Amino acid sequence: MRIIGIDPGSLRTGYGIIESDASGQLRHVAHGCLNVSGQPFLERIGAIYRGLKQVIGDTQPNVAAIEQVFMARNADSALKLGQARGAALVALLEAGLPVHEYTALQIKKAAVGGGHAAKEQVQSMVRWLLKLNENPQADAADALACAICHAHHASTRQRWQLAVSR
Amino acid sequence: MRIIGIDPGSLRTGYGIIESDASGQLRHVAHGCLNVSGQPFLERIGAIYRGLKQVIGDTQPNVAAIEQVFMARNADSALKLGQARGAALVALLEAGLPVHEYTALQIKKAAVGGGHAAKEQVQSMVRWLLKLNENPQADAADALACAICHAHHASTRQRWQLAVSR
Repeated sequence: MRIIGIDPGSLRTGYGIIESDASGQLRHVAHGCLNVSGQPFLERIGAIYRGLKQVIGDTQPNVAAIEQVFMARNADSALKLGQARGAALVALLEAGLPVHEYTALQIKKAAVGGGHAAKEQVQSMVRWLLKLNENPQADAADALACAICHAHHASTRQRWQLAVSR
Repeated sequence: MRIIGIDPGSLRTGYGIIESDASGQLRHVAHGCLNVSGQPFLERIGAIYRGLKQVIGDTQPNVAAIEQVFMARNADSALKLGQARGAALVALLEAGLPVHEYTALQIKKAAVGGGHAAKEQVQSMVRWLLKLNENPQADAADALACAICHAHHASTRQRWQLAVSR
């Protein structure tokens, strides 16, 4: 299973691609961050879509994971984040990927073991879990954590289904 | 000039296509509303993108107008509206359409002459301006009003440029 995790934002959208084998072993494939902060807002939305389309084409994931956003600082930042997330979702859905949503709490628990981890803890744990040489950039680390979260949930689901079918 | 106006929403996205000739005369081409309310949220985002892509392919506009949203009732509705608007923008931008944004005040002024019009007034005026047989559905009427707003602004700009160049 090749998973793309997305951490959408109207300035920076992180992405991370990992592979998870039948035994739940994780392997890092790629990660990065689309920085669209220098452009007018409308162009940013187009750039997020095109950028992710390119990443999906290059890395060929077969499933996607994205943080489920319930709230934002205020309505203005929610509108901006929402549009970025909408553009990201279109890129995932148009590529035919099943999209799974996880809460911030689920993602932090999967990556760090607790729900109240600082950004730096997420970066260090993702680096350790995926045997990277250095800490990934913060948004890319969140995206990788989201992909790791899906890998854990999927492998738990699989073990549970196996146990039930025996 | 063939203009598509969009009134995005996470439940209903209105669209309206009009033509505006060199003298500023308006002609109705098509209008409608993508009602995605019966689907899970993620599927709605995909359906808005695909629906508008289809409408753009069918009606071949060469410019787009969309309401500029500054605020929403609360962060939750802003997140939902934002994602719908993001999906709509990707459809417009990927079709290569220049996208113009107008405030709700500009749109109501263009369609009704005042900034505080009720939904029904917008529907009646749009019907009258475009010589329709009946009031368009509310979201489609807002989308048509947005297209009319762009037609007015574009023709004013053109007259102004002509006057300056004489």
